[in-house]
Amino acid sequence: MFYINFKIYMENSLIRDIQEICGKERVLSATEDLICYSFDATGLKALPDLVVFPDSTLQISQILKIANAKKIPVVPRGAGSGYVGGTVPIQRGIVLALAKMNKIIEIDEDNLLAVVQPGVINERLQQEVESRGLFYPPDPASMKIATIGGNVATCAGGPRAFKYGVTKDYVLGLQTVLPTGEIINIGVRTAKGVVGYDLTKLFVGSEGTLGVVAQITLKLLPKPESTRTVLSVFPNMNLATECVASIVRSRIIPATLEYMDRRAVECVKEYLGGGDIPEKTGAMLLIEVDGPETTVEREAKKIEDLCARGGAVKISSAVESRDREKLWAARRAISPSLRKISPTKINEDVTVPRTKIPEAIRMLERLEKKYSITIVNFGHAGDGNIHVNLMVDKADVDLMKRAHSALEEIFTEVLKMGGTISGEHGVGLSKSRFIEQEIGGPSMELQRRIKNAFDPNNIMNPGKIFWVYD
Amino acid sequence: MFYINFKIYMENSLIRDIQEICGKERVLSATEDLICYSFDATGLKALPDLVVFPDSTLQISQILKIANAKKIPVVPRGAGSGYVGGTVPIQRGIVLALAKMNKIIEIDEDNLLAVVQPGVINERLQQEVESRGLFYPPDPASMKIATIGGNVATCAGGPRAFKYGVTKDYVLGLQTVLPTGEIINIGVRTAKGVVGYDLTKLFVGSEGTLGVVAQITLKLLPKPESTRTVLSVFPNMNLATECVASIVRSRIIPATLEYMDRRAVECVKEYLGGGDIPEKTGAMLLIEVDGPETTVEREAKKIEDLCARGGAVKISSAVESRDREKLWAARRAISPSLRKISPTKINEDVTVPRTKIPEAIRMLERLEKKYSITIVNFGHAGDGNIHVNLMVDKADVDLMKRAHSALEEIFTEVLKMGGTISGEHGVGLSKSRFIEQEIGGPSMELQRRIKNAFDPNNIMNPGKIFWVYD
Repeated sequence: MFYINFKIYMENSLIRDIQEICGKERVLSATEDLICYSFDATGLKALPDLVVFPDSTLQISQILKIANAKKIPVVPRGAGSGYVGGTVPIQRGIVLALAKMNKIIEIDEDNLLAVVQPGVINERLQQEVESRGLFYPPDPASMKIATIGGNVATCAGGPRAFKYGVTKDYVLGLQTVLPTGEIINIGVRTAKGVVGYDLTKLFVGSEGTLGVVAQITLKLLPKPESTRTVLSVFPNMNLATECVASIVRSRIIPATLEYMDRRAVECVKEYLGGGDIPEKTGAMLLIEVDGPETTVEREAKKIEDLCARGGAVKISSAVESRDREKLWAARRAISPSLRKISPTKINEDVTVPRTKIPEAIRMLERLEKKYSITIVNFGHAGDGNIHVNLMVDKADVDLMKRAHSALEEIFTEVLKMGGTISGEHGVGLSKSRFIEQEIGGPSMELQRRIKNAFDPNNIMNPGKIFWVYD
Repeated sequence: MFYINFKIYMENSLIRDIQEICGKERVLSATEDLICYSFDATGLKALPDLVVFPDSTLQISQILKIANAKKIPVVPRGAGSGYVGGTVPIQRGIVLALAKMNKIIEIDEDNLLAVVQPGVINERLQQEVESRGLFYPPDPASMKIATIGGNVATCAGGPRAFKYGVTKDYVLGLQTVLPTGEIINIGVRTAKGVVGYDLTKLFVGSEGTLGVVAQITLKLLPKPESTRTVLSVFPNMNLATECVASIVRSRIIPATLEYMDRRAVECVKEYLGGGDIPEKTGAMLLIEVDGPETTVEREAKKIEDLCARGGAVKISSAVESRDREKLWAARRAISPSLRKISPTKINEDVTVPRTKIPEAIRMLERLEKKYSITIVNFGHAGDGNIHVNLMVDKADVDLMKRAHSALEEIFTEVLKMGGTISGEHGVGLSKSRFIEQEIGGPSMELQRRIKNAFDPNNIMNPGKIFWVYD
């Protein structure tokens, strides 16, 4: 987009050295191959010089040693499904494609943990542990394609985060390769451990800027016995969010508490050809409770009562997996339906304290008018995480300008409400302009010093998190 | 113990400057006052030059600016109940006593969070939130005196950690003062947030070496509806730990899963004059389940069955708070009972993967014989956290030597089992000799660089975590 990059790094001898480490077939340098590893879900693009598929921690270490000596940028990459340009190799160099390091090394049922390589797909791990009566909660929307390594790099969340927390809460330990090639094991295999600074949590969410995650030890839980889904339709967003507040006040923590605003409902209705959604629906809540069967039944009943008393015009509930899936249909249709109304969306994931959701939605409706831009909102009401979708068209320069102005105002307003500009996606490229506005100058300076403590030559995913393009 | 320190830093003008910041009555320099702030629960001692009681974040900042300019050590201190010498001012300087910054600033029932000053006592916060139907799980044994600030500094755990996690899992955000005096707010007030590196979790457990925690935002949960306690008596430790494994395999996660070995039971029996504990008790398990009433009832029943089938010779259970407290009597009597059998105990808190507890206990029994030293073990079986108590007498030089050799061997064996040398207490002084053995040279070097990124003049709690005494 806004950077020029030059193919400057790769001498032929260097490519041969890397081929010797990984095998010739695991090193790509033809342009048609490089293109496939040049972008992520934002559509931002930049060609790398080389794509390498290491097969082991040792190979990663050997590659990093060479890259560090020659100061060649290294960009670790999982599925490339990120939303902030985090894996786009804007300073060229090597894309370290970890998708083929995809073994589930161990599932320890007695110690409730799993050890996996970074390329394991989230959904595969979920299925594997669930078949043993265990549970790995983090469930980003991209779970069918996203890798655990990518989830760790971005600290992925998902609908279940309200009750179960995010990726960070499940990472016990990591095998990492520092930019200098040193392999260090950080964290523990135990539930507790307070020896030295917690480098594990520092790595989670560091977006590939501190080193490469080569192996991950994850905490597991017992699989909840039962799940119930409740779908409630409200005439407007205020009633829906007031209902969210009343659920939390009743001391129920649903596993999932998703909402859609009027615009999102309209898109979905059109996409599904009605989709059994009543006229004049102003907002919808999709609520799931899980746990022991008797509790789940009682909590779902209470939630239905609260929705009814809170002005819901239609309430459906389901316990069987197939019926629950029907209730999820509208929620799952949001993303494809948005694609129909405009060629591109800018998908942001601001987060506000839960009680500020109505205020945030009012603010977004105001800005929609102010900037004449369609804004569709849905997200995780439980943790205040709003997926704000600005419907744009890259060909329409004026619209793009208005969108960027709207974004800046959205971020400013969200910070005023005590929120954060990113709940799940991370900073990457897209938000690196705005990070200082949230965390402040001294904190930014500290973050730079930490980056430098890990990566003095700045080879790890350079140009991400830290804004360098002015 | 093993360091000499000199009163070198405090010019009178400097003391006056600090008095001007905090008020004269909040600055102590008389030896009799300094003595009170010279030690922690280890008994390690070193006199500071000055004890200061700041009243606000701004005062902390002003003090740190002076200390940093003059390179004066600053040791933040809560209740001084730590077990690793973490608050002992071994390089003199200023003890920053935070106990008087003890306001609960806010309890936000809708967003499920609390904002507190560092001097708030853990138990007080627990009571305050429970009176509103909310719950703050971390419950270190010292909770009646320990402060939240100290809990944050050490990432305190407690019996409930198996189900609910440790302090880190509840810290959403911190207001911190960097060694340079800069005040930075890190973390969020929201359930999610992935903007920049996670400095919050880096601060938790950093033992006052990175800066001063001036305000803490904590996540709260709804209070569990009901709790049941089961006390099971086993003829030996093997049966008890096998029973722990069978509980976990049945996919129940008790809130608490405490155990005592034969020695611990003997001490307690003698101390309580029998205490209703059967002859030939070889081990005891104290198990608590909490949650919705129907679930709790069912899980407690299942646990009783598993204990009975697993060879328990006596099983008691209780649901009312008064009856439950009776079952806790033996567990609570351990610490006072140990004081009767020898003047000093070295209290370590190694942690092994849950399934390795039997192996760890056998190892400890072997070393007890090898070094002719009484070792009493109890702890948190759920998360593999073993409180190893070496019963010693400081006057007996030979015994102390044997104890230190035994400790080194214990740490080595625990690391071989995939464990950690500290699950809850931290490194401080006591374990700084051993940290490198656990995390390795390159990781240690990285930790030093991180320390330096925060605290280039090394004024924050110098000599802790990092071993400097050879």
